[in-house]
Amino acid sequence: MLEREVKLRVNHSEFLRSLESLGLDYEIIGSDSQEDIYLDFDDCRLMLNDAALRIRVTGKGTLLTYKGPRSIVNGEKLREEIEGPLGSEECDSALRALGIPLKCSKELEEMMERLKDYGIAEKLRVRKVRRELRINGIDGKVYLDDVEGLGEFVEVEGGRSIDLVRKLNMTCRVVTPSYADLLHAIKH
Amino acid sequence: MLEREVKLRVNHSEFLRSLESLGLDYEIIGSDSQEDIYLDFDDCRLMLNDAALRIRVTGKGTLLTYKGPRSIVNGEKLREEIEGPLGSEECDSALRALGIPLKCSKELEEMMERLKDYGIAEKLRVRKVRRELRINGIDGKVYLDDVEGLGEFVEVEGGRSIDLVRKLNMTCRVVTPSYADLLHAIKH
Repeated sequence: MLEREVKLRVNHSEFLRSLESLGLDYEIIGSDSQEDIYLDFDDCRLMLNDAALRIRVTGKGTLLTYKGPRSIVNGEKLREEIEGPLGSEECDSALRALGIPLKCSKELEEMMERLKDYGIAEKLRVRKVRRELRINGIDGKVYLDDVEGLGEFVEVEGGRSIDLVRKLNMTCRVVTPSYADLLHAIKH
Repeated sequence: MLEREVKLRVNHSEFLRSLESLGLDYEIIGSDSQEDIYLDFDDCRLMLNDAALRIRVTGKGTLLTYKGPRSIVNGEKLREEIEGPLGSEECDSALRALGIPLKCSKELEEMMERLKDYGIAEKLRVRKVRRELRINGIDGKVYLDDVEGLGEFVEVEGGRSIDLVRKLNMTCRVVTPSYADLLHAIKH
């Protein structure tokens, strides 16, 4: 699947005020604490090739995700994404995209142990509270993220996400690095 | 010209100790305070297309630079770069790469005024102290950067910069966003 998203550096209150001033109705339809574990080989070769392997632990379950190299096109970030719950076939596919012929375990701890046999271990953790927003008349998903150590951001996923950003006059708020990129770069 | 660089998130003292432990002789051959003014159109369309227009004010003079979209290949950041002192032909070429048929002025203030007529204005300033290092037996330039608001980084430019990073066992310290990307993303 091709992931398509725009991340904005903006306080949530300001973002919601902008929606209101455009007359856009919205509703918060869910809230979740997410812990993202980024894994890599000893020499960080996934990062060096702009790819990523992530295990996301949420209240609803645990997902494994492979992300391919990014391209930035008109403010939108595009990258291949293969994702599935631990134990699923999609999870196996995500590992195959990395060249790892491994069966996904259903258990996080066992999964991490199996990856260790391939020289893959945790490199970075990103913790955030994510609220999902539904905006009437707008396709695509909108998330209000509060990221530990970084603060508030908004992510718009899918569809023509940059169109909403243009409508809100927020193109200068677009941020292209991932949360993991940012945390990795600022912690000394 | 194709710019080729690797940026590392590492304290300078640690980096220098690593050089010493590999038996690499080095010498600091210069130090400079740099103020980088990043400019863009009202809608930030350069940033949205992963390009940049920068005016760098240093003790040795003032340079204008156009940077094209990045690609990350094996940890190295590659991007087109056209650069020249204010008033030079290279400066005119950098503006032409942006589609701006403007003659560069020799004076910073006049230059900024002329750019304003095209809807281009300052968006962000990056201030740093940059020391240049010469490492015996190593091609390419090495800079120790102390960036206001971000801290210490090392940049290795030119040649096969990633080879030195591998030799130092620092591939996991590679950072791909620019200083401007990082400052833009973390200031709320």
